[in-house]
Amino acid sequence: MSTDVRKLLEEVHNGTVSVDTALLKLKLKPFEDIGYAKVDMHRKLRQGTAEVIYGAGKTPEQIIGIADTMLQNGQSTILITRLSEEAAEQVGQSHCLNYDKISRCGIIGQIPPPDGIGKVVVATGGTSDIPVAEEAALTATVLGNEVIRLYDVGVAGLHRTLAHLPDIMRASVIIAIAGMEGALASVIGGLADCPVIAVPTSIGYGASFHGLSALLSMLNSCASGVSVVNIDNGFGAGYLANMINHMHKNEEE
Amino acid sequence: MSTDVRKLLEEVHNGTVSVDTALLKLKLKPFEDIGYAKVDMHRKLRQGTAEVIYGAGKTPEQIIGIADTMLQNGQSTILITRLSEEAAEQVGQSHCLNYDKISRCGIIGQIPPPDGIGKVVVATGGTSDIPVAEEAALTATVLGNEVIRLYDVGVAGLHRTLAHLPDIMRASVIIAIAGMEGALASVIGGLADCPVIAVPTSIGYGASFHGLSALLSMLNSCASGVSVVNIDNGFGAGYLANMINHMHKNEEE
Amino acid sequence: MSTDVRKLLEEVHNGTVSVDTALLKLKLKPFEDIGYAKVDMHRKLRQGTAEVIYGAGKTPEQIIGIADTMLQNGQSTILITRLSEEAAEQVGQSHCLNYDKISRCGIIGQIPPPDGIGKVVVATGGTSDIPVAEEAALTATVLGNEVIRLYDVGVAGLHRTLAHLPDIMRASVIIAIAGMEGALASVIGGLADCPVIAVPTSIGYGASFHGLSALLSMLNSCASGVSVVNIDNGFGAGYLANMINHMHKNEEE
Amino acid sequence: MSTDVRKLLEEVHNGTVSVDTALLKLKLKPFEDIGYAKVDMHRKLRQGTAEVIYGAGKTPEQIIGIADTMLQNGQSTILITRLSEEAAEQVGQSHCLNYDKISRCGIIGQIPPPDGIGKVVVATGGTSDIPVAEEAALTATVLGNEVIRLYDVGVAGLHRTLAHLPDIMRASVIIAIAGMEGALASVIGGLADCPVIAVPTSIGYGASFHGLSALLSMLNSCASGVSVVNIDNGFGAGYLANMINHMHKNEEE
Amino acid sequence: MSTDVRKLLEEVHNGTVSVDTALLKLKLKPFEDIGYAKVDMHRKLRQGTAEVIYGAGKTPEQIIGIADTMLQNGQSTILITRLSEEAAEQVGQSHCLNYDKISRCGIIGQIPPPDGIGKVVVATGGTSDIPVAEEAALTATVLGNEVIRLYDVGVAGLHRTLAHLPDIMRASVIIAIAGMEGALASVIGGLADCPVIAVPTSIGYGASFHGLSALLSMLNSCASGVSVVNIDNGFGAGYLANMINHMHKNEEE
Amino acid sequence: MSTDVRKLLEEVHNGTVSVDTALLKLKLKPFEDIGYAKVDMHRKLRQGTAEVIYGAGKTPEQIIGIADTMLQNGQSTILITRLSEEAAEQVGQSHCLNYDKISRCGIIGQIPPPDGIGKVVVATGGTSDIPVAEEAALTATVLGNEVIRLYDVGVAGLHRTLAHLPDIMRASVIIAIAGMEGALASVIGGLADCPVIAVPTSIGYGASFHGLSALLSMLNSCASGVSVVNIDNGFGAGYLANMINHMHKNEEE
Amino acid sequence: MSTDVRKLLEEVHNGTVSVDTALLKLKLKPFEDIGYAKVDMHRKLRQGTAEVIYGAGKTPEQIIGIADTMLQNGQSTILITRLSEEAAEQVGQSHCLNYDKISRCGIIGQIPPPDGIGKVVVATGGTSDIPVAEEAALTATVLGNEVIRLYDVGVAGLHRTLAHLPDIMRASVIIAIAGMEGALASVIGGLADCPVIAVPTSIGYGASFHGLSALLSMLNSCASGVSVVNIDNGFGAGYLANMINHMHKNEEE
Amino acid sequence: MSTDVRKLLEEVHNGTVSVDTALLKLKLKPFEDIGYAKVDMHRKLRQGTAEVIYGAGKTPEQIIGIADTMLQNGQSTILITRLSEEAAEQVGQSHCLNYDKISRCGIIGQIPPPDGIGKVVVATGGTSDIPVAEEAALTATVLGNEVIRLYDVGVAGLHRTLAHLPDIMRASVIIAIAGMEGALASVIGGLADCPVIAVPTSIGYGASFHGLSALLSMLNSCASGVSVVNIDNGFGAGYLANMINHMHKNEEE
Repeated sequence: MSTDVRKLLEEVHNGTVSVDTALLKLKLKPFEDIGYAKVDMHRKLRQGTAEVIYGAGKTPEQIIGIADTMLQNGQSTILITRLSEEAAEQVGQSHCLNYDKISRCGIIGQIPPPDGIGKVVVATGGTSDIPVAEEAALTATVLGNEVIRLYDVGVAGLHRTLAHLPDIMRASVIIAIAGMEGALASVIGGLADCPVIAVPTSIGYGASFHGLSALLSMLNSCASGVSVVNIDNGFGAGYLANMINHMHKNEEE
Repeated sequence: MSTDVRKLLEEVHNGTVSVDTALLKLKLKPFEDIGYAKVDMHRKLRQGTAEVIYGAGKTPEQIIGIADTMLQNGQSTILITRLSEEAAEQVGQSHCLNYDKISRCGIIGQIPPPDGIGKVVVATGGTSDIPVAEEAALTATVLGNEVIRLYDVGVAGLHRTLAHLPDIMRASVIIAIAGMEGALASVIGGLADCPVIAVPTSIGYGASFHGLSALLSMLNSCASGVSVVNIDNGFGAGYLANMINHMHKNEEE
Repeated sequence: MSTDVRKLLEEVHNGTVSVDTALLKLKLKPFEDIGYAKVDMHRKLRQGTAEVIYGAGKTPEQIIGIADTMLQNGQSTILITRLSEEAAEQVGQSHCLNYDKISRCGIIGQIPPPDGIGKVVVATGGTSDIPVAEEAALTATVLGNEVIRLYDVGVAGLHRTLAHLPDIMRASVIIAIAGMEGALASVIGGLADCPVIAVPTSIGYGASFHGLSALLSMLNSCASGVSVVNIDNGFGAGYLANMINHMHKNEEE
Repeated sequence: MSTDVRKLLEEVHNGTVSVDTALLKLKLKPFEDIGYAKVDMHRKLRQGTAEVIYGAGKTPEQIIGIADTMLQNGQSTILITRLSEEAAEQVGQSHCLNYDKISRCGIIGQIPPPDGIGKVVVATGGTSDIPVAEEAALTATVLGNEVIRLYDVGVAGLHRTLAHLPDIMRASVIIAIAGMEGALASVIGGLADCPVIAVPTSIGYGASFHGLSALLSMLNSCASGVSVVNIDNGFGAGYLANMINHMHKNEEE
Repeated sequence: MSTDVRKLLEEVHNGTVSVDTALLKLKLKPFEDIGYAKVDMHRKLRQGTAEVIYGAGKTPEQIIGIADTMLQNGQSTILITRLSEEAAEQVGQSHCLNYDKISRCGIIGQIPPPDGIGKVVVATGGTSDIPVAEEAALTATVLGNEVIRLYDVGVAGLHRTLAHLPDIMRASVIIAIAGMEGALASVIGGLADCPVIAVPTSIGYGASFHGLSALLSMLNSCASGVSVVNIDNGFGAGYLANMINHMHKNEEE
Repeated sequence: MSTDVRKLLEEVHNGTVSVDTALLKLKLKPFEDIGYAKVDMHRKLRQGTAEVIYGAGKTPEQIIGIADTMLQNGQSTILITRLSEEAAEQVGQSHCLNYDKISRCGIIGQIPPPDGIGKVVVATGGTSDIPVAEEAALTATVLGNEVIRLYDVGVAGLHRTLAHLPDIMRASVIIAIAGMEGALASVIGGLADCPVIAVPTSIGYGASFHGLSALLSMLNSCASGVSVVNIDNGFGAGYLANMINHMHKNEEE
Repeated sequence: MSTDVRKLLEEVHNGTVSVDTALLKLKLKPFEDIGYAKVDMHRKLRQGTAEVIYGAGKTPEQIIGIADTMLQNGQSTILITRLSEEAAEQVGQSHCLNYDKISRCGIIGQIPPPDGIGKVVVATGGTSDIPVAEEAALTATVLGNEVIRLYDVGVAGLHRTLAHLPDIMRASVIIAIAGMEGALASVIGGLADCPVIAVPTSIGYGASFHGLSALLSMLNSCASGVSVVNIDNGFGAGYLANMINHMHKNEEE
Repeated sequence: MSTDVRKLLEEVHNGTVSVDTALLKLKLKPFEDIGYAKVDMHRKLRQGTAEVIYGAGKTPEQIIGIADTMLQNGQSTILITRLSEEAAEQVGQSHCLNYDKISRCGIIGQIPPPDGIGKVVVATGGTSDIPVAEEAALTATVLGNEVIRLYDVGVAGLHRTLAHLPDIMRASVIIAIAGMEGALASVIGGLADCPVIAVPTSIGYGASFHGLSALLSMLNSCASGVSVVNIDNGFGAGYLANMINHMHKNEEE
């Protein structure tokens, strides 16, 4: 990847390219040549993790094309999020696709064994939040994390939340997913002693304003250690949870 | 009060006023004469309760004038809400005023003994919500209710909320007051078995948007039995709590 | 219900379980064992009342499953809200379902006789608000309340509102339902002497912004005793009205 | 005023200016010369009405300068709105100014006798709306209208509104001014049979959002014949009321 | 209509009903008996004008039923607004309906000859605003006004607006209808010397936010004499225009 | 075009029309006669540029009619934006239409050779922004500009943006198109030394609120030289880019 | 701490308390006795870390009181955030307070040596964001983290951001703080390979709407691994960064 | 500036630094060394133009420090925007500062002679918009543009706008500045044939919502060639106007 720059430097070393010409070349196109793009660095550090394709707004053909390129480059696991049932059917004809209707996620290849610091808890306030939760859970799973699902533990029935206290207190990272009043993040944030990633959902009606209520509620959480991602962004939460759950591991490799 | 209508009817009866004239008179000014205005009816049913003056936007002179009229009409207890310290000083010169700086409420006269069904619990998420809570508590107290204060029991420290479970479960009505994420209403609504009046407060910063976050959160509460009043409206909550806590009593009298 | 804790305490008493082990067990799963969850307590207090299933976002199969469990546990009346016509048809094949198309509510079993303090008035501003009103009215009815319907009594035709003054003045609780400008709550709140539960509806167009206009209007009501639930939340209003209308009753039982 | 164009046409007629030159001149500055600007036309139609200066954002010097020009042009009455007390003092040193502290309006010169079709009713929901109401009332008065003030007739105390039913039903135009829930416009619109100009005010707190609640409520009024001006725009309402109250009069002159 | 009250008074006069009983009866149901409801009064003043049915949210059966009642009561012209094509077809089977697809308005009966003070100008910014404009124009026409249509005279092509200056300057009332930036109301308000009723439309995309942009723009108009009705409320504008255009006429009758 | 005014002036010169009559005529219809309307002037300055039809909300018949008139007036190139596939098919039956499905633009006639100062760069943050980008690119192309497309160069993969640094730095004008966080405009604005036209798109979900997030982000850009057009307004950006890219050219002609 | 429950169990074991009495006691106050509240657990795991007092809305006396209690309980380091200069002066009279005017933070006691996984980078878009940044940096420092400050590296001057690429790429956690367009979080999120905590600030004017623009922009970030806290919430970001930077460490202890 | 990279390349050429070491160095800090930062490139192209300091949020000391550095680097003209009167006084003590109270701008050094393509017109809707307009005008002037000021030409008095038609039609760029309804941009955009930069101002009250109304109105402008900058951003408009007015000039140099 950095061969172009290396080649240029060697030409400078050999005298076949003048210092001035090299200076100009470096000025005009520094990045694609030097190639320290994030994705690539990342690849080197944690071989074997899955690659993700964001399926929304892509045609089945485009998705297949991207997946093919990834597989040819040695990628063994690919997660496709926001994949419609119709697109999944088409992708499934050319690849061995494991499709989950609820989260609208498809997986090509093997799910790697979990290798994180601890467990990622994915909790939802209601049953309607499960599609977002599954997107988060599958993302974390595919990236190499053990996931514990605590669904329908909303704060209006606090005993359900508290029944899972041991899971909450032993988690490495918690993804708290809720629509409507979004209070789950604060309650879990107050009980847990680990980072809590809050995901507001667009579930609700009336003054929930498509997730705005839950979003504001979560941003205003009085519990420390809570941060928020976009409404319905299960993938983002799962990806961040994976990052946090592999904090030290990265350092060691 | 209804003497005008009675007099008119008597004149019709006596023949001193014709049916047509009486019909016209009744058409044009039915209300002030017939006098079934809410406040007055109410007065008759529950003698001895306090009268309330909303102090905001009124000059000390106006407040004194209104209070004087009330006292002359036999009112023994007057609550003045949203009363600035300066105005309180001025009112205090002509009347025996009991002024509370925190809630900015002033009381003239005796506080009646509580005669409600049960106890009114006033709970707040944080210490900054106390001014609104005290407005609610004083309103309820002055109208004849026993009030239990549970301050700073926000959901981020759930053990504090739960430590007061007996009070919450035995309450007749609960006023849940919170700013920021406003989750207190849902948590208490899920624990309690009585009506919960939620009061969002403008306490907070950033994405609390002056109480909007707490307001939306409370309106979206998944807990049944929760309803909401305006941001910072401690008086409204106290007044409604009193109504609910005197439900059956009213019937009996 | 609390048999687990009782059993544990007896084992401590008998010496078959050590104090330390018992302490640890109590620490880790206090709630499901001790079992003071709201719903259950509630059950004991008012035997015979209906159970409610929120149908939105649930499959017919899920609804049938939940209803079966309830019926097996001795529940004699079940209200299913937000039940689509299609789902109702499917539920109706296995259960004797009484389905109301307007409110999209279904009822399994007998409606209990009313046993509240007084009557619950359900008033709407226009005819378009009736679906929300019927959800409120059926909820209150099924929970054991006598309901008086005052539909299409909006403030733009004040004579219609005033024609029902006696009903308004004698009500135990009033549910005021309106879209557009939402002024009904204030007018009724000013006439009535009982708690008014305001329900904004998403009926309207343009600057009604899907119920926001009515919501803000109701929250700002100058009439005392008015509180607000979420836009279109007929069930919540009916449930709260039932709570208030059974205030003293609960105490006595 | 149109003398420039007339002069040009006469020069064309006389041959001292060529057709081409005249054509070019007319192209480039048509308006100031031809002079059919609204204000001026207006002036001719209704001699003797007052001129208005919007005082906000103008220095006392600027206000005095504008007033002087007007007076020199024969204007006998000048209304200055949004005039601060300090500015009023300064203006009052050079002119005979009649200053009203509540509405922050100043008047120079005589108030003309009313000559409209009927009476302009100015009604407010509360006492805090009076400053806006007085701006409207003084504007209408100064422009030649008889004004009836109905203050503090908010819908939460409907008997107060109804007590003034004859005034409301006989009005030529009604200006309904209210903050908070803004229901006054709908109630009056439903009672009256004339155009109602609704003025939302920024009076209120919490979810009134500086007049937004009243604004939306008034825009959504179900009563026919109601239109709305900007929040706190008393002047605009008074001006429009004058226009409507002089409808036919204009035609006759 | 007032026969009940008259009868009661006569009974008091005859002594068959006591003063006390009469007083009680008047207290409890004053309005439907006294009967000064707006609509009816209005009817008496201007015989022959059309009645209006708001078709949105009503079934064809309901519309037919209401129309039948009106016709039986001697109404000769009925305007039905917001009438879908399907409903129109059904109504058309039982009544002679004149249906306009663009404005979705249907008319039963004869259109009365115009009898207003002057002409009502209906102007739109673009061609997409025409459906709202036609609703306004048909409403005004059916209520007895001569209407001049100035469509697609938006301010971005100012010469088109100015080409119609004579119509604008001679109008009795102007309805200015525009989406997007809504500047038409200000420009026309600045040119005209009569009341301007501004109607924001939901036409537009992106930051027009379904009419919010035009609404705010119109509310902030610097031109005097401009007031605003709800987004897309062509009917409301037409109705108010009719009121204003019949100002003096009403007085005379 | 100005023949009417010229004719009038000649009649004044000849004495066949009096000065007074001419004055009156000029007063009442100045614009359509004098004819300095923008569009026309513009036509004269840059012969041969394309004419644009905004297709949204127009029927295929209307579009064909407008296009026919343009072609008859000698227009050789016509761009139709926001043209649905169905409408395109119909237009294509009577005219030789070049239709682009992605941008939903249709072109009749030849695309003129580019004659601007430099190149117009059209950059997008993601692939989903391409429809808006193509509307901008085709508009600029049809109006006579060389366009360079830099698609999917969003800031989250900064190396992709920087890989195109030479194009960015040499551009004459840049159109930066992005949804979601809209950061592209700031990054490009910081790198480039030419005007940047930012186009927020409605692409995104959750807290993107249909383009609001990108819109606010772009308006707040800290980079100098950035201005913003409406959400999804590719045409507006392309048109403005053409204006800027022909700045001096206009002067010379 | 759990001595109460232990004591109760021992009494049951000894037979001095009956099983029934114990059951009742456990039911009514489970939490304060059992004591698994988060804060306490936390205390045990990481002895020696600082305690934090949120100073806003607390009187100097209250702050001093809380600090005294903490110090008496053996706390060696206390961070006080949102501490006004006046309050700091008063606290400084009784305690050895290290006060920082820019961040309005005060520190009592020693700052512990950093013991996290790696370094916490605190980056700001502009110099005006520094107060929020310093609150974050001091919080992280006081909790035991090495902090690297990268101030004024906003994206409009991308070379400044890129000049610090090594710091960004080697960070353990990054706190990205920006007002206005908030693009910094996306750019850093795209460059870095670690969790990025985005803090929108209320810095800006106009369409920044007090931080709303930056907030929405950050929530919509296309870069993976980015989550958001409340506007201006430097403390929350610093606290969460500390949590993440001590992930594995916690596990080991 | 690029000496570091040049030196590195020379060392590679000389063999004193290995290719690998050079590659690593280039990877880690490419930008500050290579130095193609925008500002610097820009500087070289147009020697002699002014430098700008954004004064808001900077202390007088900081401003003086930055100015000193600029002056030492040979800068002859410095514009300081958003400079408070107090800060101006302090800066004025050490530098020869030309301070304008209205726009709160200060200028150090000589204003260069205008060298743009044509004239920059700065137009405002009202007199209250002048501070923003002067910021724009001074910015454009200091950067080398001839500026024509058209103040108080708002659309409500269209004749004032049209009186300046020649200036508008001959402008090279127009900056249209307006608060309230913001219609000025559309009207000017419809008249002019050059780029129009719209600046919404926060001038207004009520539903202007601090400039939101004008902002939305301008974004929705139907006139082509209009783009928008942030509310009150006079500087941004002036800077962009300068860029556009020097389009071809840049090319030639």
